[in-house]
Amino acid sequence: MSERANQPTSQQANQPTTLVTGAAGFIGAAVAGKLLEEGNRVIGIDSLHTGFRANVPAGVEFIEGDLRFAETLEPLAGRRIDCIMHVAGQSGGEPSYDDPVFDLQANTQSTLLLLLLARKLNCGRFIYASSVSIYGEQPAGEHGLDENLCPAPQSLYGVGKLASEHYMRLYARQFGMDCISLRLFNIYGPGQNLANLRQGMISIYLAQALDGRHIQVKGAAERFRDFVYIDDSVQAFLDARSNGLSGYNVFNVCSGVATTVEQVIEVLQASLPFEVSVEYSGSTPGDVHGWRGNPRRIREATGWEPTKDLETGIRQMVQWALAHKGAG
Amino acid sequence: MSERANQPTSQQANQPTTLVTGAAGFIGAAVAGKLLEEGNRVIGIDSLHTGFRANVPAGVEFIEGDLRFAETLEPLAGRRIDCIMHVAGQSGGEPSYDDPVFDLQANTQSTLLLLLLARKLNCGRFIYASSVSIYGEQPAGEHGLDENLCPAPQSLYGVGKLASEHYMRLYARQFGMDCISLRLFNIYGPGQNLANLRQGMISIYLAQALDGRHIQVKGAAERFRDFVYIDDSVQAFLDARSNGLSGYNVFNVCSGVATTVEQVIEVLQASLPFEVSVEYSGSTPGDVHGWRGNPRRIREATGWEPTKDLETGIRQMVQWALAHKGAG
Repeated sequence: MSERANQPTSQQANQPTTLVTGAAGFIGAAVAGKLLEEGNRVIGIDSLHTGFRANVPAGVEFIEGDLRFAETLEPLAGRRIDCIMHVAGQSGGEPSYDDPVFDLQANTQSTLLLLLLARKLNCGRFIYASSVSIYGEQPAGEHGLDENLCPAPQSLYGVGKLASEHYMRLYARQFGMDCISLRLFNIYGPGQNLANLRQGMISIYLAQALDGRHIQVKGAAERFRDFVYIDDSVQAFLDARSNGLSGYNVFNVCSGVATTVEQVIEVLQASLPFEVSVEYSGSTPGDVHGWRGNPRRIREATGWEPTKDLETGIRQMVQWALAHKGAG
Repeated sequence: MSERANQPTSQQANQPTTLVTGAAGFIGAAVAGKLLEEGNRVIGIDSLHTGFRANVPAGVEFIEGDLRFAETLEPLAGRRIDCIMHVAGQSGGEPSYDDPVFDLQANTQSTLLLLLLARKLNCGRFIYASSVSIYGEQPAGEHGLDENLCPAPQSLYGVGKLASEHYMRLYARQFGMDCISLRLFNIYGPGQNLANLRQGMISIYLAQALDGRHIQVKGAAERFRDFVYIDDSVQAFLDARSNGLSGYNVFNVCSGVATTVEQVIEVLQASLPFEVSVEYSGSTPGDVHGWRGNPRRIREATGWEPTKDLETGIRQMVQWALAHKGAG
């Protein structure tokens, strides 16, 4: 393998390259697009289970494949890859209960396979889309959840994400890789899949509003989350390439602001050109009452800060959705 | 599935039954044997990858199958199973680096598949052979590692075991099962596989001594472990069936005594009828310097206590090994 890596079959194959998994999904496609904008060469992988081929930015070298399986990575043998950004995976707490083994394979086995690939290709940097879900429900203190808390996931999804983090920690310490786990809080914005009513709090409410001018909330109005606009989360991936980060690092990607479900719906309503009705009922397995993160560590280590407030972000998302749906 | 469970095909199929996975391995076979002795009906499963068919106690209904795959559990559809004791798995830190994906599937995916089975069959109790490995290297305080510490596994093996524990915690809390994780420290004794030189500190040294009167230690003499005799560890599985345990419980299965590598070898030497030479060199990936557990929680919850001191245990193991090897 290492011999082949020294004998690229083409000039192209030896350019500095980032591998982005989930490149046809909401976050992965945005990460890939931004990398291209900044002049990077990008290979994208996606199974297209939940992503869409049309999301993959033009200019990405695209491989359709399922990262649960080692075979998917075979075309990358001997390629130069300088950084892996592993964004692909099953992305919700609730759906992880549909098929727990799928969740484990898509979110944890995939990470292991990519870490094995990284070692083979001498790829020194591995950046992972982890999740606030690894915290579970716990008292966060006045500054919000911080990275020193002991993880206690409350969904099967969170368990798989946490196991991926542990594998990365070991690969960093034992094999000298630089691994960064980005614990994404609630990411929202243009590009989110409005046809998926089980993933993404804001996108679910927005989709319901556009569809029937009625929002059906599963769970209490007082629940709260910490929202980050898509472009800000993408910047966190780019900042994680900073040379200042070595060994294993784990960062919250959060705003530090708690917003209740009720407040989200108020802001949404203010951006919508029609009245919506709201109904609260039921709950979701593995759901937690509240998540608010402490963004200090990532700010101090990389300078990253969220730049978009929720009102502006939601307004832009609503405008995007209206334009794409042709509703109004 | 639940209809079939109400219509057993035979009288036998409706007796109270314990499913023991890994029933052809060191600990699983001993657990299955003890359950039979106490009058229980036992179904055993083993892939025979590392276990031996001859280890499975007579009287166990044996299924040969690999628990990485859902198909293995298909013959159990509609059966009455009252308790699952999940002992099967890849059992060492060092070998987990040979094939990390195998380790994840054998140790974590298998747990998920068995938890899914337990729900289908309305099996209310799930007891798991977890491991001290979930702790990793951390300061233990004067009473040894206790269950309140935040796990930080230092081997891929430990990551998989920890993920299994988290799944069990969620199944207990979200689906009303009673789940018990037994964090086994260093289990040793008659029945351990002396042909496997990568798993079991005492069995490795003993096997080397019997083979060439020379012990080659990978790592420092001052490293320490907390040893538990096989019969004591088996009793911990039986005690975990206690009705007093509901919801999720996690227990160290340990002695509370730290024994260094050097001391182990001294005790071994005292039991052997010939002199052995000892050499220290190298190390093992994912190895830790020291592990000593605090056994208080399991004692208070179930009354379990180790009964065999290391000198007696090692003497009995050496006698067993000499009798089986015909060496001396």
